Amino acid sequence: MGITFHKGHGTRNDFVIIEDPEGMRELTPDVVRALADRRSGIGGDGVIRVVRGGAFDQWHGDPELWFMDYWNADGSVAEMCGNGLRVFVRYLLQQQLVDQLEFDVATRAGVKHVRADAHAVSVWLGPATVADDVVRVRSGALEVEARPVNVGNPHAVAFVDAAQLRELDLGVAPTWEPAERFPEDVNVEFVVVEGPGELRLRVHERGVGETESCGTGVVAAAAAYRRASGFEGPVRVEVPGGSLGVDFTDAGAVLTGPAVIVAHGHFTQP
Amino acid sequence: MGITFHKGHGTRNDFVIIEDPEGMRELTPDVVRALADRRSGIGGDGVIRVVRGGAFDQWHGDPELWFMDYWNADGSVAEMCGNGLRVFVRYLLQQQLVDQLEFDVATRAGVKHVRADAHAVSVWLGPATVADDVVRVRSGALEVEARPVNVGNPHAVAFVDAAQLRELDLGVAPTWEPAERFPEDVNVEFVVVEGPGELRLRVHERGVGETESCGTGVVAAAAAYRRASGFEGPVRVEVPGGSLGVDFTDAGAVLTGPAVIVAHGHFTQP
Repeated sequence: MGITFHKGHGTRNDFVIIEDPEGMRELTPDVVRALADRRSGIGGDGVIRVVRGGAFDQWHGDPELWFMDYWNADGSVAEMCGNGLRVFVRYLLQQQLVDQLEFDVATRAGVKHVRADAHAVSVWLGPATVADDVVRVRSGALEVEARPVNVGNPHAVAFVDAAQLRELDLGVAPTWEPAERFPEDVNVEFVVVEGPGELRLRVHERGVGETESCGTGVVAAAAAYRRASGFEGPVRVEVPGGSLGVDFTDAGAVLTGPAVIVAHGHFTQP
Repeated sequence: MGITFHKGHGTRNDFVIIEDPEGMRELTPDVVRALADRRSGIGGDGVIRVVRGGAFDQWHGDPELWFMDYWNADGSVAEMCGNGLRVFVRYLLQQQLVDQLEFDVATRAGVKHVRADAHAVSVWLGPATVADDVVRVRSGALEVEARPVNVGNPHAVAFVDAAQLRELDLGVAPTWEPAERFPEDVNVEFVVVEGPGELRLRVHERGVGETESCGTGVVAAAAAYRRASGFEGPVRVEVPGGSLGVDFTDAGAVLTGPAVIVAHGHFTQP
């Protein structure tokens, strides 16, 4: 197997990108795993195929939109990845596959609106729904209340202090009660409020472990913070991999931050 | 910064390769760390610059030899890396920078003899010196005797049973007594004897953690096994990343196994 690739990242969430406008190269779980392998492949948190909507048989919307065919590193498909979408947009712009800085893209989670400048990419991720109940989350010796937030995927957001954040050992997955609240597992964000509209967090992604950034987790944290504090403005969130902004608009939560393409080349599976 | 790279691996020890025959592009710790970063760079356990001996100012031997300018991912230089040397040799052959299958290469640890075929690369790593003393190694609840072996770098080889090997948690570095036996830290191999001349091991590399393969660790394990068993033939060693062979010759220990180049491309640091 030989395949031309690009690689990019947004706040150190990294992706292998395969450009396939005409849909001539469908990905398979084996190919995705081979590309995403950090030692025998190129390496990434996910693999994104760039394909015209009209060439993707599961897309029934506008055939002219670019479709983000997103796969997790383990070979499963995912509906949405906020940082992946930002890197996808940067790729479209860099390769001049679009001729505007604000446009729509197609994803398994539907049409998403996006906007970019030279430094940052903003993606409209839709509503972030903060639940009315709370759960209790446990991580090592720490046990805290957390707020469920749905951003298309499930999150639990716990507010902690700086020492608690620093001392967390997320090498072990957090647990929660009641266990049945998240039957399909949950992403857990531990959040410190640094100041008005300024958060810092660490995240444990379900099925993955601690990561340096999680786009939907950043949105969930900002939404839970607004609910708890009544703060109305844009929220800045520091993650281990960098800094992201969240705005809340009538059209949903907007995630903004850097996204760069760092390499291109050819991969050959021996 | 823009730079052309190749990437290869040997039993899942992976390396970024920079070809620089005339020595026009000296590496710096910053460049090495940027290339080796698995998220914002290309990713690798190390970075290898391929340079003519005559173009490398610290090499005073045959100027026609190819010099392996090896750097660890953290930006420090290393004298030798057994799997890195095997990948370096595969690169020279694949790029037709040599016209024979058996030749000498230059390294910070001196001239090393190498030989290759389509499947495997053999490298002569010099003597593996098994010490006469023993140390006690502790990893979690396991406490076992281990044999010091010097293969240019320090190793401690402990023989365990299959259940002990499986249950090891090498997320925490092993400790040893007497502590002063290895003042500069030590690589620890936990080894199961599967049959005559057949070993299986897991390794904790000093300063790195558990890895899927360690060339000098494989040689150290084979040497300690020969000493303990009196076995005279070639030794096969299964590591998490694959399978390697060790022969002992009058010219030193020979490490043999697969080495492949999987990608090439261009890296741009934004």
